[in-house]
Amino acid sequence: MEIVGIAAMSLDGFITKHDEEGVAFTSAADKKFFREALTAFDCCIFGSKTFLADKIGILRNLTPERLRIVLTRTPEKYAAYQHPDRLEFTSDSPEDIVADLQKRKKTRCAVLGGGELYTLFLAKNLLDELWLTIEPKMFGDGKKFVTKRMDIDVLLKEIRKLSENTILLKYTIERKIRNP
Amino acid sequence: MEIVGIAAMSLDGFITKHDEEGVAFTSAADKKFFREALTAFDCCIFGSKTFLADKIGILRNLTPERLRIVLTRTPEKYAAYQHPDRLEFTSDSPEDIVADLQKRKKTRCAVLGGGELYTLFLAKNLLDELWLTIEPKMFGDGKKFVTKRMDIDVLLKEIRKLSENTILLKYTIERKIRNP
Repeated sequence: MEIVGIAAMSLDGFITKHDEEGVAFTSAADKKFFREALTAFDCCIFGSKTFLADKIGILRNLTPERLRIVLTRTPEKYAAYQHPDRLEFTSDSPEDIVADLQKRKKTRCAVLGGGELYTLFLAKNLLDELWLTIEPKMFGDGKKFVTKRMDIDVLLKEIRKLSENTILLKYTIERKIRNP
Repeated sequence: MEIVGIAAMSLDGFITKHDEEGVAFTSAADKKFFREALTAFDCCIFGSKTFLADKIGILRNLTPERLRIVLTRTPEKYAAYQHPDRLEFTSDSPEDIVADLQKRKKTRCAVLGGGELYTLFLAKNLLDELWLTIEPKMFGDGKKFVTKRMDIDVLLKEIRKLSENTILLKYTIERKIRNP
């Protein structure tokens, strides 16, 4: 199974604007890219804050074509939303989640944040690629993409302009050069 | 006078690797770009930590073609290094430094960091462009490019690959859209 981290950030590396949850700061071009990109994944993983920041949108768009896994320390709190094969809540380790998805014959998994989740998957060497949208903004403060000190090298795979001012950078992470 | 902020950063927005002063983390391609880019500027400004991190290199390469201004709270500490028209130390405000450089007929000024200096010049609306080298690395921790909360929009001017994995992004900052 291929696992891709997808994020949008400011030019200075923040995935939220200051204390605002969610991605209201991102451009229409990024939102369009993200929506279309997700259709190529048969599963995705995100954290409970990401779930809560876009709960209505997520619940409205549940489909059997893409399993959503929400990683949370308290899955029991979300029992009312649990919908097997569409929306599942778990406190399993990233390794166990990935092993379970592979057993269920999933082939492409998107890791959608927030920062703690990206960091967890990076630290466990579980991401094959990173797709980063760089918005033409500087915030100086906000949630960081990587929340713990690490030292990871990546390889540039693709540069694409999503609009006049917004770019998409795709990087691959090779196991041999991973050193978190 | 045109004023350009020039910086190299990790993919997650840090201008140093963890606590290391200086830019040992940058690629040979960025170092070459930086050296060549500087030749087109007749003055540059940087902070005292940046001076101390590369003191030997700076002192060895002083030329009358490019005035170096070091912004420091304690210029008197550096009196032994003061060399009028080549290397000057000042505690003046950014506005006064810029006014003085204009009076001296300087035409292109590079602002070279660190983070506090970039932030000061951004907050005072004194930068016309930003040239950012994005190295294919993630650190999770280090010195930030922008050290204070702000909300600045920029316009993408140019994307250039400096090497297989390192890119240069040039942005312009228009006065009308500045809102720090």
